[in-house]
Amino acid sequence: MIVSVVAGNPKPASRTLTAASLLASTLTGKEPDHVVDVVDLGAGLLGWGDSAVAAAVETVAGSDLVVFASPTFKATYTGLLKLFLDQFSTSDGLQDVTAIPLMLGAGPAHYMAPDLLLKPVLVELGATVPAAGLYVVDKLYDDTEAFQPWVDRWGSIVLASANATVSAGDR
Amino acid sequence: MIVSVVAGNPKPASRTLTAASLLASTLTGKEPDHVVDVVDLGAGLLGWGDSAVAAAVETVAGSDLVVFASPTFKATYTGLLKLFLDQFSTSDGLQDVTAIPLMLGAGPAHYMAPDLLLKPVLVELGATVPAAGLYVVDKLYDDTEAFQPWVDRWGSIVLASANATVSAGDR
Amino acid sequence: MIVSVVAGNPKPASRTLTAASLLASTLTGKEPDHVVDVVDLGAGLLGWGDSAVAAAVETVAGSDLVVFASPTFKATYTGLLKLFLDQFSTSDGLQDVTAIPLMLGAGPAHYMAPDLLLKPVLVELGATVPAAGLYVVDKLYDDTEAFQPWVDRWGSIVLASANATVSAGDR
Amino acid sequence: MIVSVVAGNPKPASRTLTAASLLASTLTGKEPDHVVDVVDLGAGLLGWGDSAVAAAVETVAGSDLVVFASPTFKATYTGLLKLFLDQFSTSDGLQDVTAIPLMLGAGPAHYMAPDLLLKPVLVELGATVPAAGLYVVDKLYDDTEAFQPWVDRWGSIVLASANATVSAGDR
Repeated sequence: MIVSVVAGNPKPASRTLTAASLLASTLTGKEPDHVVDVVDLGAGLLGWGDSAVAAAVETVAGSDLVVFASPTFKATYTGLLKLFLDQFSTSDGLQDVTAIPLMLGAGPAHYMAPDLLLKPVLVELGATVPAAGLYVVDKLYDDTEAFQPWVDRWGSIVLASANATVSAGDR
Repeated sequence: MIVSVVAGNPKPASRTLTAASLLASTLTGKEPDHVVDVVDLGAGLLGWGDSAVAAAVETVAGSDLVVFASPTFKATYTGLLKLFLDQFSTSDGLQDVTAIPLMLGAGPAHYMAPDLLLKPVLVELGATVPAAGLYVVDKLYDDTEAFQPWVDRWGSIVLASANATVSAGDR
Repeated sequence: MIVSVVAGNPKPASRTLTAASLLASTLTGKEPDHVVDVVDLGAGLLGWGDSAVAAAVETVAGSDLVVFASPTFKATYTGLLKLFLDQFSTSDGLQDVTAIPLMLGAGPAHYMAPDLLLKPVLVELGATVPAAGLYVVDKLYDDTEAFQPWVDRWGSIVLASANATVSAGDR
Repeated sequence: MIVSVVAGNPKPASRTLTAASLLASTLTGKEPDHVVDVVDLGAGLLGWGDSAVAAAVETVAGSDLVVFASPTFKATYTGLLKLFLDQFSTSDGLQDVTAIPLMLGAGPAHYMAPDLLLKPVLVELGATVPAAGLYVVDKLYDDTEAFQPWVDRWGSIVLASANATVSAGDR
């Protein structure tokens, strides 16, 4: 199973990225195979055809399980994350990818954002998103216990979904 | 696999109900095991503790795969459907149920409603909702071809999810 | 200015109703002219043409300012409130009405629901909804201080909007 | 009344920009005072503190009426537009601004996006958004008739709201 993490925080090596990697490793028992810190892609995100952006898109699209993570800006995901998602093709850009929407925020007020706002974008790209989204208060970004209840509740469902595409890829 | 259909149209035996049953049978190759035409539950929906309502809730909660269907009223699902969903317990009322949000409407303008509005309610009840929601223009309510592209794209994913709970129930 | 309050809590004379009335009186300096406790309308809500329901719809539609209030059930407004809203005509059922979406909930997690979920239904009915929605933690339902920041921020905007329809009605 | 237009299309001088300007002029009877074609701001959008970005933010924040326009990418507004909106301060970045959410798309399927997705971001920034959002099929981008029904229905409400801040600014 190829596991990737995408973090859409304008600050490099952010808490968002740490949280996404921690969620992935808690869930799968291994470090993620690929980490895309979107801000590293820089100005190539503002147009079409940048090779580093294209490579990152290809890596993510070729994964079986991807955590898409964003801090909460203006009560939703960041423009930076959306800029990257805009690079995928509609309907099938994330086909055969099981996706997890993860958002971090200062307080509990934006708890609904992963399911109401980030998940629909991933679905539009063709991802399979079987679980509830996850919202974590950002000061708990590296606290495994903040992720454990979600992993206990949704982990086997998400892994079964991701494993199904692994098997499909083997055919 | 226990398959149910829930239709939240104030008109009994509606096109909504026909469409939901057709989607279920196209997907599974058999008639649904249970059909809940919510309007039949009547005034018992307005309070708590009605026995017919409780039985319907239990039937749905005990299913492996459920199509939740609604016409589009005021750009979202009906109050009638929500009245029924309000009877389930939060977080686990639909645990181990794979759910499909289906909405019908007069034109294409409300195409986004199943994913943005109906799906989050089902997720809040604990359902696994791995596929994109489905919106069908209501004059095509009994046209298998209106459902086939969705079934081709999402059918195996939804069935795998539902089968997983069948297996879990067998343990 | 005709001011009404609509409360969609299945429990009669609920905290929701008290909160909505308190918001209206804090905002306008007078008791609301009309209070619709939706649950009192009973089974007439389940069909079309009930005279008490029609009278309540007419009262609300003829108001200049209306607080639409709901507890949070399954992370959104209640089926009961939606059942009442389904009785209004689309696009113009609330034309010339300035509406305020108000939701109460046990904790802060559903803070986004009034703006993301209840407001769009009111807009679809043709209401003018110039302000942010308001979410109040339900144990503060009768605490004026829980409403004051919203009134300070949005009160004059909402009142100006409502007064405009009063003037229009006078022409 | 200071009127601005913001267009978040990665293509400069886009149909989105033309449509937004046409909506503004149809509504106010004059050309917009300021036009922000977000893509022109370039890589400065990816961080904080760029002077051209800061100037554009200040211009928009100091306007009375602003059309925020985006093509539909992945069933919502563009990452580019959100990148610009992320530069405003939360809650008061658009205080005393009356905002109109405008989206263009290839077909009618994403008709709900302006109200469900773009409007909440503007409200979070403190804008007054009294009217329904507007969605226009993109081939009609320069057809006044595509905008006229919205202007007829919501124009006086939006102008009254914008005029209120003009008056406030005069005090």
